[in-house]
Amino acid sequence: MSLRASDQEVSSSGALASRLFECRVQTTALTAGLTDADATVQSMEDASPTKWHLAHTTWFFEEFVLAPYVPGYRRVDAQYRYLYNSYYDAIGPRHPRPLRGLLTRPTLVEIVDYRRRVDDALQGLLSSSLPPAALDLIELGIQHEQQHQELLLTDLLHLFAQNPLRPVYHATRDADCADTAPEPGWIDFPGGHFDIGYAGPDFAFDCERPRHTVLLAPYMLANRPVTNQEWIEFIADGGYRSPQLWLSDGWGRVQAEHWQAPLYWVQRDGTWWQMTLSGECPVEPGAPVSQISYFEADAFACWTGARLPTEFEWEVAARAQPVAGQFASTGRFRPSPVRLDMQAPLRQVYGDVWEWTASAYSAYPGFKVAAGAVGEYNGKFMCSQYVLRGGSCATPAGHVRPTYRNFFHPHQRWQFAGLRLARDRT
Amino acid sequence: MSLRASDQEVSSSGALASRLFECRVQTTALTAGLTDADATVQSMEDASPTKWHLAHTTWFFEEFVLAPYVPGYRRVDAQYRYLYNSYYDAIGPRHPRPLRGLLTRPTLVEIVDYRRRVDDALQGLLSSSLPPAALDLIELGIQHEQQHQELLLTDLLHLFAQNPLRPVYHATRDADCADTAPEPGWIDFPGGHFDIGYAGPDFAFDCERPRHTVLLAPYMLANRPVTNQEWIEFIADGGYRSPQLWLSDGWGRVQAEHWQAPLYWVQRDGTWWQMTLSGECPVEPGAPVSQISYFEADAFACWTGARLPTEFEWEVAARAQPVAGQFASTGRFRPSPVRLDMQAPLRQVYGDVWEWTASAYSAYPGFKVAAGAVGEYNGKFMCSQYVLRGGSCATPAGHVRPTYRNFFHPHQRWQFAGLRLARDRT
Amino acid sequence: MSLRASDQEVSSSGALASRLFECRVQTTALTAGLTDADATVQSMEDASPTKWHLAHTTWFFEEFVLAPYVPGYRRVDAQYRYLYNSYYDAIGPRHPRPLRGLLTRPTLVEIVDYRRRVDDALQGLLSSSLPPAALDLIELGIQHEQQHQELLLTDLLHLFAQNPLRPVYHATRDADCADTAPEPGWIDFPGGHFDIGYAGPDFAFDCERPRHTVLLAPYMLANRPVTNQEWIEFIADGGYRSPQLWLSDGWGRVQAEHWQAPLYWVQRDGTWWQMTLSGECPVEPGAPVSQISYFEADAFACWTGARLPTEFEWEVAARAQPVAGQFASTGRFRPSPVRLDMQAPLRQVYGDVWEWTASAYSAYPGFKVAAGAVGEYNGKFMCSQYVLRGGSCATPAGHVRPTYRNFFHPHQRWQFAGLRLARDRT
Amino acid sequence: MSLRASDQEVSSSGALASRLFECRVQTTALTAGLTDADATVQSMEDASPTKWHLAHTTWFFEEFVLAPYVPGYRRVDAQYRYLYNSYYDAIGPRHPRPLRGLLTRPTLVEIVDYRRRVDDALQGLLSSSLPPAALDLIELGIQHEQQHQELLLTDLLHLFAQNPLRPVYHATRDADCADTAPEPGWIDFPGGHFDIGYAGPDFAFDCERPRHTVLLAPYMLANRPVTNQEWIEFIADGGYRSPQLWLSDGWGRVQAEHWQAPLYWVQRDGTWWQMTLSGECPVEPGAPVSQISYFEADAFACWTGARLPTEFEWEVAARAQPVAGQFASTGRFRPSPVRLDMQAPLRQVYGDVWEWTASAYSAYPGFKVAAGAVGEYNGKFMCSQYVLRGGSCATPAGHVRPTYRNFFHPHQRWQFAGLRLARDRT
Repeated sequence: MSLRASDQEVSSSGALASRLFECRVQTTALTAGLTDADATVQSMEDASPTKWHLAHTTWFFEEFVLAPYVPGYRRVDAQYRYLYNSYYDAIGPRHPRPLRGLLTRPTLVEIVDYRRRVDDALQGLLSSSLPPAALDLIELGIQHEQQHQELLLTDLLHLFAQNPLRPVYHATRDADCADTAPEPGWIDFPGGHFDIGYAGPDFAFDCERPRHTVLLAPYMLANRPVTNQEWIEFIADGGYRSPQLWLSDGWGRVQAEHWQAPLYWVQRDGTWWQMTLSGECPVEPGAPVSQISYFEADAFACWTGARLPTEFEWEVAARAQPVAGQFASTGRFRPSPVRLDMQAPLRQVYGDVWEWTASAYSAYPGFKVAAGAVGEYNGKFMCSQYVLRGGSCATPAGHVRPTYRNFFHPHQRWQFAGLRLARDRT
Repeated sequence: MSLRASDQEVSSSGALASRLFECRVQTTALTAGLTDADATVQSMEDASPTKWHLAHTTWFFEEFVLAPYVPGYRRVDAQYRYLYNSYYDAIGPRHPRPLRGLLTRPTLVEIVDYRRRVDDALQGLLSSSLPPAALDLIELGIQHEQQHQELLLTDLLHLFAQNPLRPVYHATRDADCADTAPEPGWIDFPGGHFDIGYAGPDFAFDCERPRHTVLLAPYMLANRPVTNQEWIEFIADGGYRSPQLWLSDGWGRVQAEHWQAPLYWVQRDGTWWQMTLSGECPVEPGAPVSQISYFEADAFACWTGARLPTEFEWEVAARAQPVAGQFASTGRFRPSPVRLDMQAPLRQVYGDVWEWTASAYSAYPGFKVAAGAVGEYNGKFMCSQYVLRGGSCATPAGHVRPTYRNFFHPHQRWQFAGLRLARDRT
Repeated sequence: MSLRASDQEVSSSGALASRLFECRVQTTALTAGLTDADATVQSMEDASPTKWHLAHTTWFFEEFVLAPYVPGYRRVDAQYRYLYNSYYDAIGPRHPRPLRGLLTRPTLVEIVDYRRRVDDALQGLLSSSLPPAALDLIELGIQHEQQHQELLLTDLLHLFAQNPLRPVYHATRDADCADTAPEPGWIDFPGGHFDIGYAGPDFAFDCERPRHTVLLAPYMLANRPVTNQEWIEFIADGGYRSPQLWLSDGWGRVQAEHWQAPLYWVQRDGTWWQMTLSGECPVEPGAPVSQISYFEADAFACWTGARLPTEFEWEVAARAQPVAGQFASTGRFRPSPVRLDMQAPLRQVYGDVWEWTASAYSAYPGFKVAAGAVGEYNGKFMCSQYVLRGGSCATPAGHVRPTYRNFFHPHQRWQFAGLRLARDRT
Repeated sequence: MSLRASDQEVSSSGALASRLFECRVQTTALTAGLTDADATVQSMEDASPTKWHLAHTTWFFEEFVLAPYVPGYRRVDAQYRYLYNSYYDAIGPRHPRPLRGLLTRPTLVEIVDYRRRVDDALQGLLSSSLPPAALDLIELGIQHEQQHQELLLTDLLHLFAQNPLRPVYHATRDADCADTAPEPGWIDFPGGHFDIGYAGPDFAFDCERPRHTVLLAPYMLANRPVTNQEWIEFIADGGYRSPQLWLSDGWGRVQAEHWQAPLYWVQRDGTWWQMTLSGECPVEPGAPVSQISYFEADAFACWTGARLPTEFEWEVAARAQPVAGQFASTGRFRPSPVRLDMQAPLRQVYGDVWEWTASAYSAYPGFKVAAGAVGEYNGKFMCSQYVLRGGSCATPAGHVRPTYRNFFHPHQRWQFAGLRLARDRT
């Protein structure tokens, strides 16, 4: 990917070190209150255990920073190179993904110790002068670890949702939020030529580059994401029983997996409940709907007569707004009704829920894969996935940008993913 | 979809009738030499039996033309409505796709008789004056049947390729073709604004519309498709053993299904053979490679340092050329080395092999699904598939256009699909 | 297996030849009225196509009789050795069983011609003097082919049962049968020492030997098989919804495959119908229930408070009776209510339906596998299967004996298999 | 099942209480050294987590003893009734078996506390006078818990064997064992009538009853189980590559799962290693082979020209010997070469490894299922499984008897299961 090339090496190195260790501490802090078992089990193949997230993000620094840049560096444990490689074929063989949950050893305590020892080595490394390439890799390691912070939370929620005891990860804090969402409305955007993608001096992933021009027709975006209340109406109107609303592959999933509501919803005595990181709670009507697949997002849009926005439409609209919203730093870890003091016409663009777009995840014109193993970071996933934008209540604050592209397969449901409607202007 | 609205109803109706019955006859003619058994078996879930193609294309006219437009029309067999519906949920329940090959009855003779009786009814209908909507549906039925003519051939080839006796569908005719392909070369194309999609008065599928403007950067296309000879070099260089060349999902397929060459290739005593509709033949070095997946096309392009073209780049380049090439009408039914008398700089754009593009199959801006059951024709498949362009040696002559969009899933291999390389101009 | 050693070689050879060609003709005769497609399709992995049965039984003679005993014998087609080997590992590689239905070629006509040519060669061979070992193999070939005659019918019924058009294999002949079954009753049998298995001079399969003594406690057998009427009562009483009646693996099947009635039964407007070789017919209340698994037989017995007999109890009771009953020669091909003129206390012991026993299929004490490839005939299947006794309406007359052991897996349902109840005498 | 009926209620109740709490303490003691994660993960569907074993054996007492016999008993946690029911359909719905490993909560500490609270309640109950039925259920609960003690160890070994770090459950104690096994030899046994099954006053499982007479032909048994050294010879001779040695279903497994050695064996640099509860160790040549399936046992016997004994042959031979051998109480937890001081002609009959017999697990003549939910204990598993005899190095001392019948499916490999050869005397 294209990384920051700094000519203020020393001072930036200090700032980088602060951000690095702040990030490392945050990751470990997410495990407070988890048992060794909570941190070990893999509840489905798409998810990874907490311990694996902790170790893999550490392996990343060992593999790409310490081993190349610390002369004579000795790995904490030679077997970790095999166990905690995720998908970097260039690095060598790796432990199969579906078996990650069988590693009851090392223990959570041992993994935390592994993190500490690697942090010590990074501290040592960062006290010396480093070439820009090394700094770039540390920056990438921070961004990478932030992504795993979010996955750690969504994977844990999936695990706890399988448990009939409905474990609580942490008690919900009261949110500064309204009970209800504002009335739905449309915001107009003009057509024209727009530059898309990142071209600035700071970090951005390779898939956000190169910046290039696209042509957009005039369009409208909804003033806020679709809410749980609207989703309840969709269910009540037979949304999950009407094949004509669905993409063909989506309808296949609805039938094969008996989808009837968002992933963690269950109805008891006429009331909808949903599993959250604070345990099972009543569904909040005014909060953005979450834990839905692309297929569901598309079917809902079809039901309303609208459509999903393209990622370009989203980016052009979103970049006029400050990157502010409910991120993981609020500690609420669930989408919330819009804050009353938010007066921007386009609300909840950032945070709360990732927004599915109509755009297949693909390379921007002129995209080049980075040299070396880190070149496997994004490019090899550019197939059969869809772009989501904006970040969620589980995304670390400061991680996303207007140009940031997240991506998942259209059937995947366990993320904090919702939707915002779009329309053509006619 | 958007169809032809004619004000010369009578004469066009006569021309339409000619094309209709010519098409109907061609379909049945493809079954010459097939046994009842050949026409019955379904060799994989993606494929359908010949009898099913024959009956389903007939059901299409019964369902969408005869039933609505012939007063008091009585279906040939009430059960065929259930058996030969493909995927139109709005029409009602249907026989499950994976079970199509269990229908040993009706026999091939009975299905041909079903065709004849529906043709008779269509003949009667077309002798009267028809509203434009009916003519549009007949036109759609012809186009639909042409698509099934191609699938009939590719599905049959798949079936015969499973048989160790290597049955011959028909003897190959000598082709007017060279032994070797021309030297590879690049053709330059400028960037700029281009109108994409169909906007003319004739038939085009809904997914080819609406016509809209896109912005392209300058690019290059290869002067011809990738050849078997080049593919042999890719294999020899370890192409199927090098994960770094592959999309992540593609590499998963390579390993799970032990891909080592295009679908119908087998190596014996150092020579590559391939199954064709003329039985097993030596691989022709100068012919375009075929029966490859998107994953393989993409890995090959990565191996060369080039890339696949977008469907827009392809369309802009292709529309400068006449729609001529080796289609099904040549009766050779396999990709051939380029004809010596073809002197266009860009060769074999049409016919021979469909060319995988880098474009995910998605709706053009402003796309609207047609009302009624025919609205299920294309829109509901716009997910997780990739666009192919140009037609193949199994496509009926006259069926494709520069704007024509075919689509398959990236792992599917049984079509006459190959690739043409593209590059950025730097 | 242990075969007949004859010292009257010439005359017995003549009798053997008669029986051989009678059997061969009967097999081919079963295909009258079938299309090439009917004879080609494989409707599930457990079943084989008619053409495969025709060819495999022919291959058996080519492989085990003609090739060894005809000097310089040339096989009709070298590839048939691969295509029509069933499971004889000692013979070499073979076409995978699940792919048998993809062989649309050779055609049915070609297979019948293959049969004719092998019959001609057998005719030639039998006109000369043959060693006893060759005669034994021909005898085995006849018995083997008779087994496939039955499978051909049950496999065909399975195929036709998948077709919503409900094809008719042949019109039912009126049976010499009553509408209702006799009242249920118990027949007492004493305990004691009994010799089990075959020890005579004629043919018997290896698994019926050696004859050996078993000790039985006094027991009772039902005077007739369980009827459809009784099965309807079992269903009505919640038999398929009561886990406590079922073996653990059986209850797993009931739930996974949604069993609610015997395999080919369907209820419409309160009436039970069943698919038969004469098409779909109302269930005959007085006929023995059929197309049930061991799991269902066991659950039914549990529901009545009785049990299944052991194969020894069955054999001791059955050998007092003539081997007479409704076999395939009646041409009715479905279990029938008991004939009124049958006055034996134990009715329908032979023919109509195979009767599941409580005995796992295992080797008799002292059992030895035969030398050579035919040693693979029975022994290697002695695991996880259950013994059925008595023959069915699809078994060739003359094929079964009191000592005859058929066997299927406990979940398999597509045979003419029913049950007879047993009890301890207390 | 048929249980002990005591007329010395009071004193026996005291003895029972001692045995009960001794057993309960032993179970918990097995978890020493395990982490919460070790105790939580389910490494395959056949295995259960340690925590589940701890809780399920406790649920058994709550469900069958405390709830019926303690007036007003309040369950420790109402949800445990659902979570820790194994397969008792009569009790109600239960947590699906494949999901047992997703229950990271309750924690190991909470489960141990659950055990303590139930033990307290049992202590209270046992201080009063109890009806014989209650005492019988407590006895059954002890026997049941002992079975789970063994499964806890074999399931844990399976889990640790999936971990490339090869965790050590506990350090091996030096065994009082030789390096080599004695020479193989045969012991003769006469034929005749023998009483089989349990008829005494003490506890035995329902499936060991009723005692009944069987007739045996003269036979021979090997003087010791097959050793690892002999198994290495079997491998070297192509045992896993020779289909003619295998049952048909067995050969299918060999190919599908790539069996090449016992379950936990791996070859490195020409040496065989195996995973044990003491981590990875070199294979001990003189120790009984273990972790093999019935299929492998049968193929090995076929390779030697011998056979497996029936369970009756085994029982008759074994009951002449004291029930002594290497059980779990030795704390070695792996099969060992025969002790030098063991001079019985038939060695290692008890302990070390369960011995596969040729007998399908089925009901003895006159077998009756017990009334109520405990009737689901054994009878419903009498299908498609094979009997093993003698106990293993993981079986609690005192648990097995000469009449004891263990059973597993023929493909299952994760138990301490080996074999002893048998022969007919001719």
